[in-house]
Amino acid sequence: MENPRRRFLKNTGTAMASLSLSAVIPDRALAIDDKTTGKKEDPFKVGIASWTFVKFKLDASLEMTERVNVKYLCIKDFHLPINSTSGQIAAFLDQLKKKGITGYGVGPISMRSEDEVNRAFEYAKNVGVKLIVAVPNHELLPHVEKKVKEYGFHIAIHNHGIGDKRYPTVESIYEKIKDLDPRVGICHDIGYSAQMGFDPATLTLKYGRRVYEMHIKDMTSNTAEAKDCEIGRGAIDFPKLVKALRKTGYSGTCSIEMEKDNMDPLPGLAESVGFFRGVLKSV
Amino acid sequence: MENPRRRFLKNTGTAMASLSLSAVIPDRALAIDDKTTGKKEDPFKVGIASWTFVKFKLDASLEMTERVNVKYLCIKDFHLPINSTSGQIAAFLDQLKKKGITGYGVGPISMRSEDEVNRAFEYAKNVGVKLIVAVPNHELLPHVEKKVKEYGFHIAIHNHGIGDKRYPTVESIYEKIKDLDPRVGICHDIGYSAQMGFDPATLTLKYGRRVYEMHIKDMTSNTAEAKDCEIGRGAIDFPKLVKALRKTGYSGTCSIEMEKDNMDPLPGLAESVGFFRGVLKSV
Repeated sequence: MENPRRRFLKNTGTAMASLSLSAVIPDRALAIDDKTTGKKEDPFKVGIASWTFVKFKLDASLEMTERVNVKYLCIKDFHLPINSTSGQIAAFLDQLKKKGITGYGVGPISMRSEDEVNRAFEYAKNVGVKLIVAVPNHELLPHVEKKVKEYGFHIAIHNHGIGDKRYPTVESIYEKIKDLDPRVGICHDIGYSAQMGFDPATLTLKYGRRVYEMHIKDMTSNTAEAKDCEIGRGAIDFPKLVKALRKTGYSGTCSIEMEKDNMDPLPGLAESVGFFRGVLKSV
Repeated sequence: MENPRRRFLKNTGTAMASLSLSAVIPDRALAIDDKTTGKKEDPFKVGIASWTFVKFKLDASLEMTERVNVKYLCIKDFHLPINSTSGQIAAFLDQLKKKGITGYGVGPISMRSEDEVNRAFEYAKNVGVKLIVAVPNHELLPHVEKKVKEYGFHIAIHNHGIGDKRYPTVESIYEKIKDLDPRVGICHDIGYSAQMGFDPATLTLKYGRRVYEMHIKDMTSNTAEAKDCEIGRGAIDFPKLVKALRKTGYSGTCSIEMEKDNMDPLPGLAESVGFFRGVLKSV
């Protein structure tokens, strides 16, 4: 069976060439048979963003990932440092493989110099992934684009809300990247969007074709005072979001990120995964 | 605010008088404002069946119930023995109250003699609930009906699948109770229905007006070999079930029962609660 990650990126690349903001044609050829999502025909996967496990070593993180029956993990540097040797990377990948878990991307990685951009692409290449979730300085975007063309990878720039001077919103990312190579795109963290008063579903309909990674969470309100909470307990309209993801043919990963209770994330993660899958099954 | 349990039972009693199997009129007056269900207008609540916590003492069980944001618990005798003193019952209820959790019913309680029937009704009365989930011997049903009239309580007889000679199926219960006082009804354990090849949604449409308690779980298949699993991972069609519950105006509790991993039920319970709420939110 073809590696789902490779298939996703290959197809995304193909699809990108023919996409415009006014014409959305969900590409059902992107669909993968991930039985952990709600419907077999969903072109996107359910994953976990590793920030969920910021207080845990890799083995415990993989145990929790397995417990909630998730097969895709976005790799963070606290589990696999950027300067890892090839031996360390091989050992890391072996640990994932034993659990049947695929590391489909790396990041978020902050990029404040050309060297950091270069290092991130080499890191992704050595790990064997073609998706980098990133936060590059604005002036580095031409260099990022050059590297995207050189490696054939996708970059998903992450929004971090009002406190982030580089990329507070999805729109602020889009404005910076819209004229770059289409493989320079967005990682949409819906929590930060909600915290700034945006409806993530509306943003998905508007910018979704340039989104290559989704960080899925819930917030207690649509205001700056909002706190992270279990998916389903907060203010985000998930049925509406899932409809938007399907309408735009999103074919990346919906990676659940549980930031609340980070010393004991498993119950909240499980509830969140369950809720999101319940919505996927029902919408 | 009126006690939701009292309101449920009072209204159910009223509604029952005008129900027939051919005319289903969802009684929206039954709706309670339980923000832990998917939609405010749902007339039913989400609860937990205490069998989930068979390996845990009450304090740990309540911690887990609180963690998954559930407010209703069906009380099992391993947490509050049938022969508890009034002091023990008061201490038990005080523990629940401190967590903001309502014990809305007791059981399942097996009834093999008139004495056991009598004792169960006194127990329920002393605990302050008006719903008894029960498994009475067939020959005791006239006595159960007498007690139902005397106390004004509801009885929900529990199906236990192919191994249960008394009540294997919902239909077998219905056939025995259909001519009794309408407060003698059914606790529909959908896992046992699925295991016997029935679709719980279809059974809900057929017998739902006589159902006063739902035990919600999932099974790995629709066959006798099926095993319990996290809700959403198995064979039961939950969107269809929720539609049927709403169509029939079910106004009791959907109590989630996690039997898998009973030494460590919290992650599976959380995933199950999440999935069920995700379906409630989306259907």
